[in-house]
Amino acid sequence: MELNNYIEHTLLKQDATEENLLKLYEEAKQYKFFGVCVNGRNTKHAKDYLKDTHIKTVTVVGFPLGACTSSTKAFEAKEAIENGADEIDMVINVQALKDKDYSYVKKDIETVKKVCPNNILKVIIETDLLSQEEIVKACEIIKESKADFAKTSTGFVKNGIGAKIEDIKLMAETLKGSSVKIKASGGIKTKEQAVALINAGANRLGTSSGVSIIREY
Amino acid sequence: MELNNYIEHTLLKQDATEENLLKLYEEAKQYKFFGVCVNGRNTKHAKDYLKDTHIKTVTVVGFPLGACTSSTKAFEAKEAIENGADEIDMVINVQALKDKDYSYVKKDIETVKKVCPNNILKVIIETDLLSQEEIVKACEIIKESKADFAKTSTGFVKNGIGAKIEDIKLMAETLKGSSVKIKASGGIKTKEQAVALINAGANRLGTSSGVSIIREY
Repeated sequence: MELNNYIEHTLLKQDATEENLLKLYEEAKQYKFFGVCVNGRNTKHAKDYLKDTHIKTVTVVGFPLGACTSSTKAFEAKEAIENGADEIDMVINVQALKDKDYSYVKKDIETVKKVCPNNILKVIIETDLLSQEEIVKACEIIKESKADFAKTSTGFVKNGIGAKIEDIKLMAETLKGSSVKIKASGGIKTKEQAVALINAGANRLGTSSGVSIIREY
Repeated sequence: MELNNYIEHTLLKQDATEENLLKLYEEAKQYKFFGVCVNGRNTKHAKDYLKDTHIKTVTVVGFPLGACTSSTKAFEAKEAIENGADEIDMVINVQALKDKDYSYVKKDIETVKKVCPNNILKVIIETDLLSQEEIVKACEIIKESKADFAKTSTGFVKNGIGAKIEDIKLMAETLKGSSVKIKASGGIKTKEQAVALINAGANRLGTSSGVSIIREY
């Protein structure tokens, strides 16, 4: 397994510095990671630095709460694409899912997809806050809304665990037969975890521990 | 001291439900709080519910990381005002402050202020992540950028403490002689804390424990 091809080397802490970002890009080049995942303000910075490489620039939207309006998410995604983002990782409106306002959840995703029809759109469902039933429902909505990936976690939930094997299995089961892929993210720190998540159905891994995972591998 | 007049009754958890919001509004009315503080998607919902009251609707922007672009923050703030927000609580770009890119920090605030010149703009500096020197610098920039309040915390920092007496004192000292006020927020749970923060210089309190604080009072 070419583990590096699965990894989006991730730096989303708001107090990271430019020096930390430059290290992220260099490591992504050295370890041939699939991409880097950064905050909106750093999209252009990442893209410019990585322009002569195959490394994708992934930008988060409505992150990490997903609680802004759909139009704000769409504005943010459109601007990220203009700034060079290859892929967009948006957060669902968790409140709407809890309220069983499924049409809102779907329209929220579709509103973003509409501004980036030619880019990969991943939809973070924040599994730490969801019941099994809600995870299934969220994946069904993602399928209907023509997004490209369901993604487990932001990594920003207090006392959150992040990507769990059982959640990936449930998501894979729900998404079976569709074209929607799975990104596991949040709390992925070891090679064992990474391999187990892929074996459970993950097609992509979001982690800030990519370097130590690959060194272990 | 009319403690209720200081309190913005706050509900920003992404997995709060509409039922939780309705309870928030009812409590704000019952206890005559200064305002409610909600996420972008709920601005109109709050404003509609509270339209016949004196309770202000406060909306967060670029929340809680402050790591999106300035134009996304401005779009979000403008839309919030259109949806009825009376006040905007934005988050600074912490990375730029850490990088000592002070002109970015200032321009980021000014870009938001420009779209809501007639509304109160509070600027969250996220004290948990800052040194004393950085707190002083952030307050100086807020003074220059003509924002209306410096605010301590989002309440979303992992292992964060939130509003601390010593930070409020430092902010008050730095802002002395200017028109910039102070909102203490994050981790305010008791009457003693609330009163001590006001005595240290806070003009407003953001808390989700307003009801128990007032009951104690």
